[in-house]
Amino acid sequence: MSNNHVSALQEKEMDVYPSRVHGKPQILQRQDPVVHSEWTPDAPLTQEQSGFYERNGYLSLEGFFDGEELAKYQAEARSLQVTARASKQDEVIREPGGDEVRSVFAVHESHDVFKKLSQHPRLLAIMEYLLGSETYIHQSRINYKPGFTGKEFYWHSDFETWHIEDGMPRMRALSCSIALEDNYSFNGPLMVVPGSHKEFVACIGKTPDNHFKDSLRKQEYGVPDHDNLTRMVKESGIDTPVGKAGSIVLFDCNIMHGSNSNITPMPRSNIFMVYNSVDNKLVSPYSGQRPRPQYIATRDSR
Amino acid sequence: MSNNHVSALQEKEMDVYPSRVHGKPQILQRQDPVVHSEWTPDAPLTQEQSGFYERNGYLSLEGFFDGEELAKYQAEARSLQVTARASKQDEVIREPGGDEVRSVFAVHESHDVFKKLSQHPRLLAIMEYLLGSETYIHQSRINYKPGFTGKEFYWHSDFETWHIEDGMPRMRALSCSIALEDNYSFNGPLMVVPGSHKEFVACIGKTPDNHFKDSLRKQEYGVPDHDNLTRMVKESGIDTPVGKAGSIVLFDCNIMHGSNSNITPMPRSNIFMVYNSVDNKLVSPYSGQRPRPQYIATRDSR
Repeated sequence: MSNNHVSALQEKEMDVYPSRVHGKPQILQRQDPVVHSEWTPDAPLTQEQSGFYERNGYLSLEGFFDGEELAKYQAEARSLQVTARASKQDEVIREPGGDEVRSVFAVHESHDVFKKLSQHPRLLAIMEYLLGSETYIHQSRINYKPGFTGKEFYWHSDFETWHIEDGMPRMRALSCSIALEDNYSFNGPLMVVPGSHKEFVACIGKTPDNHFKDSLRKQEYGVPDHDNLTRMVKESGIDTPVGKAGSIVLFDCNIMHGSNSNITPMPRSNIFMVYNSVDNKLVSPYSGQRPRPQYIATRDSR
Repeated sequence: MSNNHVSALQEKEMDVYPSRVHGKPQILQRQDPVVHSEWTPDAPLTQEQSGFYERNGYLSLEGFFDGEELAKYQAEARSLQVTARASKQDEVIREPGGDEVRSVFAVHESHDVFKKLSQHPRLLAIMEYLLGSETYIHQSRINYKPGFTGKEFYWHSDFETWHIEDGMPRMRALSCSIALEDNYSFNGPLMVVPGSHKEFVACIGKTPDNHFKDSLRKQEYGVPDHDNLTRMVKESGIDTPVGKAGSIVLFDCNIMHGSNSNITPMPRSNIFMVYNSVDNKLVSPYSGQRPRPQYIATRDSR
């Protein structure tokens, strides 16, 4: 703990991504690579895929899982949704203004099926290639985005939150979203601003203590300003990488993303696994505040 | 007024679309034509367009307005949005949980530009063909669906509300939505269930008095049940007729439709004009309750 504290102070002296400290938003250039390895023919992605990820900040891989393997994840997620409804655990997050289960956190710790999924060799090979080192799970969750009542996830860069609230030093992490149902353009799919991962939008406002309990339902701090969002979208547009169940989307920790609500009858459940480089372990939060709990941000990276 | 009352009683004895009176949802078959004229080569729609509308309950016409004409509507709508922000008039509806302008009603009465638009000869010809008679404006409004904060419109059949709350006897009305901006799949476009206009979903629950004030922000009564929505979407899917600014979408009064929220920076403003047949004028509301105000449902059809 005291080691952590010292290293946080050291890091803070050279914090290259300050946020929530200025009165107005600022744009900082990314100081870290996007792909942390040199591509070779042995890489687990084609050169084209790797280049697409580097330029756009995301990559969609259709049909990554299928058959019995996919069915196993779907069944486990459905069964978890049922037990989560009655659960009082902190790991279970509800929809704003309702009791429907929005997310369940730390599924790679609570469920063997998801633990094994997080260590899936085909996934790990890609993560180690993109992050240039061994990796560990920074955060895992299932987002259920139920039909009829699923609410939006407002625009944000994950890294902004992980840096300020969790103490993740640099941009060397990524999310892997595994579709448990077919995604459509109309059931609240993930929207990304391609290329936005190359600039860091420093947000305004100080975060209240224990803010995370509300932010997982509806984010109100660490959100980018309208002017910068408008500019980014005007420059680069919006991509909605939709795919069938079993497809995965990889996206960089700093890409600007969000999703609209879902009034359709089709739920949009996804498993999220966030991989961080072992060379990018958490220090004390850059906000100077208390870190969020382990089930949101792993501090003992095994 | 007393004439209205008598005819309402007469109509009620033979109310073919009862709703909000049963303890569980019911499905009733449509008793009215969709296209109320025989198609001839002189019709203002092609036979294919007319057939598409009859089968699917909606029709998209790309580039119906353009150039100076479109620019005039856009400018007037933008200017109205600015004045509406400071307005305390009932006609101005705010977004739920915010102060952004969601809709402005009765624009065909308050603004000459929109009055003329409502009587546009090319529009009127189509309305008179589809409704088989002269028509009048039952309701008009601009929906602003602002960027970043635009909330969803939950699934509903307009006719269910117009019948129960306004006293519209039969299915002989339609909406014309005029896009003031380009619509995309990701900025909360209109979603319709094709073919759903051929069945009437009788909803459960009695409507509270003066319910309309809340329902224009967020509808909670007269909403179809999850089971029927799920079945309808499984049978017929969801269409999202998106088009460029100046495109119009016509949709039948009984088609099941709604839209998701809009967190993108692109607003999705549309002008809505609802045309009703002069042979289908309002009687007393079928709920037996007080009718909604004139700015929502015209009772003196001129």
